[in-house]
Amino acid sequence: MKRDEILTRLRYQMKMQKVDALVIPSSDPHQGEYIPAHYQCRQFVSGFHGSAGTVVITAEDAGLWTDGRYFAEAEEALRGTTIALYRLHTSGTPDYPEWLTTVLPPGSAVGVDPRVVTIAWEAAVRKTLETCDIRLVPIQDPFADIWEDRPPVPTGTITVHPAKYATEETVFRLQRLRHSMMNTGAGIHLVSTLDDIAWALNLRGTDIPFNPVFLAYMVVERARVRVYIDDERLSNEVMEHLKKAGVRVYPYRMAFPDLAELESCDGPILLDRERTSWAVARSNKKIAVIYGMQPSTAMKARKTEAELAHIRTAMVRDGHVMVRFLSWIDELTADPERWKHYNEMSLARELNSLRAEDPHCVSESFETISGINGNGAIIHYRVQEKSAAPLTRPGVYLVDSGGQYLDGTTDITRTVYLGHDSHEEIDRQFPHLREDYTAVLQGHIALACLIMPVGTSGRDIDVVARQHLWRRLRNYPHGTGHGVGYHLNVHEGPQRISQAGTEYPLDVGMVVSNEPGVYRPELYGIRLENLLTVVADKTGDFGPFLSFNTLTLCPFDRRLIKVSMLTAEERKWVDSYHQDVRDELSGGLSTREISWLVAATAPLT
Amino acid sequence: MKRDEILTRLRYQMKMQKVDALVIPSSDPHQGEYIPAHYQCRQFVSGFHGSAGTVVITAEDAGLWTDGRYFAEAEEALRGTTIALYRLHTSGTPDYPEWLTTVLPPGSAVGVDPRVVTIAWEAAVRKTLETCDIRLVPIQDPFADIWEDRPPVPTGTITVHPAKYATEETVFRLQRLRHSMMNTGAGIHLVSTLDDIAWALNLRGTDIPFNPVFLAYMVVERARVRVYIDDERLSNEVMEHLKKAGVRVYPYRMAFPDLAELESCDGPILLDRERTSWAVARSNKKIAVIYGMQPSTAMKARKTEAELAHIRTAMVRDGHVMVRFLSWIDELTADPERWKHYNEMSLARELNSLRAEDPHCVSESFETISGINGNGAIIHYRVQEKSAAPLTRPGVYLVDSGGQYLDGTTDITRTVYLGHDSHEEIDRQFPHLREDYTAVLQGHIALACLIMPVGTSGRDIDVVARQHLWRRLRNYPHGTGHGVGYHLNVHEGPQRISQAGTEYPLDVGMVVSNEPGVYRPELYGIRLENLLTVVADKTGDFGPFLSFNTLTLCPFDRRLIKVSMLTAEERKWVDSYHQDVRDELSGGLSTREISWLVAATAPLT
Repeated sequence: MKRDEILTRLRYQMKMQKVDALVIPSSDPHQGEYIPAHYQCRQFVSGFHGSAGTVVITAEDAGLWTDGRYFAEAEEALRGTTIALYRLHTSGTPDYPEWLTTVLPPGSAVGVDPRVVTIAWEAAVRKTLETCDIRLVPIQDPFADIWEDRPPVPTGTITVHPAKYATEETVFRLQRLRHSMMNTGAGIHLVSTLDDIAWALNLRGTDIPFNPVFLAYMVVERARVRVYIDDERLSNEVMEHLKKAGVRVYPYRMAFPDLAELESCDGPILLDRERTSWAVARSNKKIAVIYGMQPSTAMKARKTEAELAHIRTAMVRDGHVMVRFLSWIDELTADPERWKHYNEMSLARELNSLRAEDPHCVSESFETISGINGNGAIIHYRVQEKSAAPLTRPGVYLVDSGGQYLDGTTDITRTVYLGHDSHEEIDRQFPHLREDYTAVLQGHIALACLIMPVGTSGRDIDVVARQHLWRRLRNYPHGTGHGVGYHLNVHEGPQRISQAGTEYPLDVGMVVSNEPGVYRPELYGIRLENLLTVVADKTGDFGPFLSFNTLTLCPFDRRLIKVSMLTAEERKWVDSYHQDVRDELSGGLSTREISWLVAATAPLT
Repeated sequence: MKRDEILTRLRYQMKMQKVDALVIPSSDPHQGEYIPAHYQCRQFVSGFHGSAGTVVITAEDAGLWTDGRYFAEAEEALRGTTIALYRLHTSGTPDYPEWLTTVLPPGSAVGVDPRVVTIAWEAAVRKTLETCDIRLVPIQDPFADIWEDRPPVPTGTITVHPAKYATEETVFRLQRLRHSMMNTGAGIHLVSTLDDIAWALNLRGTDIPFNPVFLAYMVVERARVRVYIDDERLSNEVMEHLKKAGVRVYPYRMAFPDLAELESCDGPILLDRERTSWAVARSNKKIAVIYGMQPSTAMKARKTEAELAHIRTAMVRDGHVMVRFLSWIDELTADPERWKHYNEMSLARELNSLRAEDPHCVSESFETISGINGNGAIIHYRVQEKSAAPLTRPGVYLVDSGGQYLDGTTDITRTVYLGHDSHEEIDRQFPHLREDYTAVLQGHIALACLIMPVGTSGRDIDVVARQHLWRRLRNYPHGTGHGVGYHLNVHEGPQRISQAGTEYPLDVGMVVSNEPGVYRPELYGIRLENLLTVVADKTGDFGPFLSFNTLTLCPFDRRLIKVSMLTAEERKWVDSYHQDVRDELSGGLSTREISWLVAATAPLT
């Protein structure tokens, strides 16, 4: 179907549903990071596939709002359509709610599918529209009748997270969840975010790429727990597992009708404004509501000792994969006849297939970012078969990848030099490279070594990794770290190390990434990422303190470290980390790989 | 009048004004830090004089809400009254809006004098009360008829800030202010914060201790500026000054009646929700409102080159005062017969009288904090004649003070050792002292040396000064820095270096304090405070950067610096700062003072 034909049909829908504008956001009913194809309505309308963007349609106009990461891609996608591009955060460009107040007359109505926006979104957009007497109204899915060949709602396999790895019996986990809910004063709680449901039930799914989750709703009450998944999707093992945990199963499509009927003698319903759809909030008007962070978010963020022990094992295997990969690259770049056959895409494929050899590995934890030279400077670079850059020498290669293992989720970035040149030759080829690399490493070390009082949030400490770069007039346009799940989403909250992050305090057992970087457009990108876990440090006259323990095991590229820039302490940290890497990884490698590892982890000189 | 008699009369007022509860906050109609005695209603009811606290009265109950700094003082003040103490931020203690929802039945009314609460306060408290169907209603000043001997509204002298120091003609300043207002889309703007009015009009006053301001309201329109001050307060010079700037003067009491009558053909009125009273917001229902930060706040925060030149001169004179004071203390502690006659209070008096000798000095910029040993660990310590601790030896002395000079406002904290002991003896007397002092100094240096990209806020960088203390399991329970006015309030926004600070970016010309500390209860407090100004640093491949320039000129106590803890860079910073101090201050000192300064600023060994 041509894009303008889709717009015509949507405008007919607007007429039928009596609205003057239509908002089509990039989200689904479960507020996930990856959107099942069935819910990629914004992509269907606009042809634009970036992760962030909103299409708004009025009778006369149509626009796509997106941010700086995607301007080029969006321009390309919209070429030849009547959809205008609105570049967010560029001067004079209003966001779409403000824009709507300028193009619609008072008394107009703006429609949105209430399943795909959050309660918080609704409140914010309503507030803006109301200043100009414009209403925000919930409408039926406008794509239901007009999208031919629409991909179905996913119904992938659902499996029990093996007890060995799950570490806590589901019935106890649900009991803890119920207690947390009751502590907020609520008697009932609806969960619609998929990682929270998978975590609570010790189940994993395959509905969404990279995130091992499945579409469901869960309703927790004082006396019972209900989950909405179509039971034809459930094996006997899963059925048995849920039964044992006392969880009743209802059809997915019954979640909203049941919610509408719900009455509660136990107290109000707890809803998370950021993680629950407007459709949920408006489906039941009988029960009082408490808004608050859903308890499972903080509970699953704090990994147990048993989970951390599994994660450490997974990190050893993931380290083996990385050593195999990086040592193989070094061999490749030494052999001109071989390396000329490779490109960014085949490197990524090689890495992914090395990970896939591990029987614990279910999938990658996100799409591997594999960028040579200038492509490494594109922070959300997506390598594609037809546009993949060849393996050049000399070159700088940034690879950000991770695995979904049954016993942990990994996420690691390394930047390596492609070639076997002397420092002088590297400095000649890339004048700032070693200084950039070392400054990023100093930022990484500063965060890894930080000691901080209990109560410190990721918001507070973002600058710790940044200050060394600032001193050299460098910076990076992204946060320093994100939370990571346990065989769950590679991005999970509530913690996050970022100037835009939350005030939620870091706590023992949380896993966060440490990933400062430097990006020089068209030259190269450098990012050095390890995962850390928060541990209790000493308690003294000034109260209890926390620090980090590094989980990821993989050498940094010694060729790119300018040792003269490091303090004695920083050198000691690198040597001691490399010693740990060597000690932990030596077990499962070939002689060839071990000798690469020994050289790669030799003390700095 | 007995406190319970006051409560009885207030309850009668509640009946007359038809409210079921009364909120008496610690604020005045101009939202200042220091409250004129006339508006100290909370103090009058409760006898509690701390800077933060709210009294709430219902027919049966009365309570005072305050925070941890003031628990002891509040207990003492409330002894023998029927007012209960509610300790904020202790577990299970609700704040007063929540408390009101638990003690009042639905349909109740809570009264407050709308002149003494902000628009933001009203919105927040209303929201909480509404959840339980309780109304928030504006009432007449309940103290008007019941407070006998109420101090009058202050009417101190008002003077023109001499043109030499004011650096910008009032008419141009008002024009800039008007343009900023118009850029927000507003056609009219009401200012009620006194430092903003004093800044805009180049006038200074004496209505409030330490803050050189005067009670007034100012209304800025496109075509005219009006100020509400009783004209019997104005000298001919001030009248002439205002006339020349095109400012019309109206009686103070006419501000609200005039506001009620105001009509605007020029567009909506701009009000700052945090800095304008609810009474202002509700006094005119005819004009549309734009809420936003008032332009003068950001304008006066950015000091001009000319202002900074004056501030540097004031800093030299303030440095002379500090050198005279600290060298005199060192002489004193060398002479047992003399020092036994001194205490914290007489030290503070001596310092204040040294400052007062300067003809540019109008007053102190806040009440001098002068604490020996354990008293130095009380962050808001208030030295009083009857409780002042004697000058002990050995001892640790913390002194935080500042001057209001016509050409700048200063604020400096130094911690010095009282005595002439060897390092070994100091370490024996106070085992952690030199380590504490040096760690605080390292934090101070880290912030002073920071380079940061344009756009960085004080919120982002608070940890820079803190990390060195954290590493040694130390911390301080206050922010790292506050904005400082130009011969205006010693605390001014919008910038602030604090985890609780604003996201408002630091900008060239802003002045902020740099004051990390360590406090060991009952032993000593250490705080090292200089004022800094933000300057443009280099612009490189990653955009423009900013850094700080230190303005304050006074040696740190070399006796307390553990040189072995410092990096080479830190040592270099101290030596170079001390060199600057010596170079800048040598001019106006006696031979005796110069020889003290030379020793105090000698390179570290």
